Amino acid sequence: MTETAVLTIRRATEADLPAIVAMLADDPLGAARESPDDLSPYRAAFGRIDGDPHQHLVVAERAGRTIGTLQLTVVPGLSRQGSTRAIIEAVRVHADERGSGLGTELIRWAVERARELGADLVQLTSDATRTDAHRFYERLGFVPSHLGFKMKLSD
Amino acid sequence: MTETAVLTIRRATEADLPAIVAMLADDPLGAARESPDDLSPYRAAFGRIDGDPHQHLVVAERAGRTIGTLQLTVVPGLSRQGSTRAIIEAVRVHADERGSGLGTELIRWAVERARELGADLVQLTSDATRTDAHRFYERLGFVPSHLGFKMKLSD
Repeated sequence: MTETAVLTIRRATEADLPAIVAMLADDPLGAARESPDDLSPYRAAFGRIDGDPHQHLVVAERAGRTIGTLQLTVVPGLSRQGSTRAIIEAVRVHADERGSGLGTELIRWAVERARELGADLVQLTSDATRTDAHRFYERLGFVPSHLGFKMKLSD
Repeated sequence: MTETAVLTIRRATEADLPAIVAMLADDPLGAARESPDDLSPYRAAFGRIDGDPHQHLVVAERAGRTIGTLQLTVVPGLSRQGSTRAIIEAVRVHADERGSGLGTELIRWAVERARELGADLVQLTSDATRTDAHRFYERLGFVPSHLGFKMKLSD
């Protein structure tokens, strides 16, 4: 008998850090940026995220395996008649699960959660080199209306 | 005798809302989005911003006039070895002050404040039609490395 394993998306705990950091590092851009062998900076960051009620760091699990993650941030603002924005960051899908539709499920979940949290607008930025991701977000209804600028303050 | 009026950048209070909303509305994109004749949605949003310790909504004043505004948001995260990001939103300079260098002073102040608040990275998005703004941010050291996607959840 075949059983379809249920996908669960839940708040991340500190015990999820090794799996999350492994996914952050297993990525063309993340490989050069992350340090999965030393979790201490991630533990400190987890404390900052977990202590801020406007941060929603989640993992996706299926059959006991952690297969995806993203972070949703709720940002109140004045512009657009006092609109609240939800910002999606650090979306990752486990290498074994790419092409499975999990990315779509994760983003649709995040949009629905943003709506529940009172957001009027969901936004995200994607590195200009991630052209597959751009098509993916456009298919899901996002509009590439902006340029995203960054400035590093430390190395 | 000529006196040079000092520029002050300080935390916004509810009393600043009319001046801030007037600046948000006096803008090619803001004109269609804002409702300066009805401040009630802005008052509600101000309460949300003021109650969140990670939001820093400021105004710039000179000689008793409110001439600029921006909002800085501190977002802890796991990626880039637990980097904290500062996001700049809703930057506006009063029409009478454009070209005066005030925009540069505001953004430089925001980058310095972001550093004091522990940010490793400062980021912002700018509407693709604001080409003058893009040159401005590049001159200040920002890199246009990303595409910015948005999805509206309400009208």
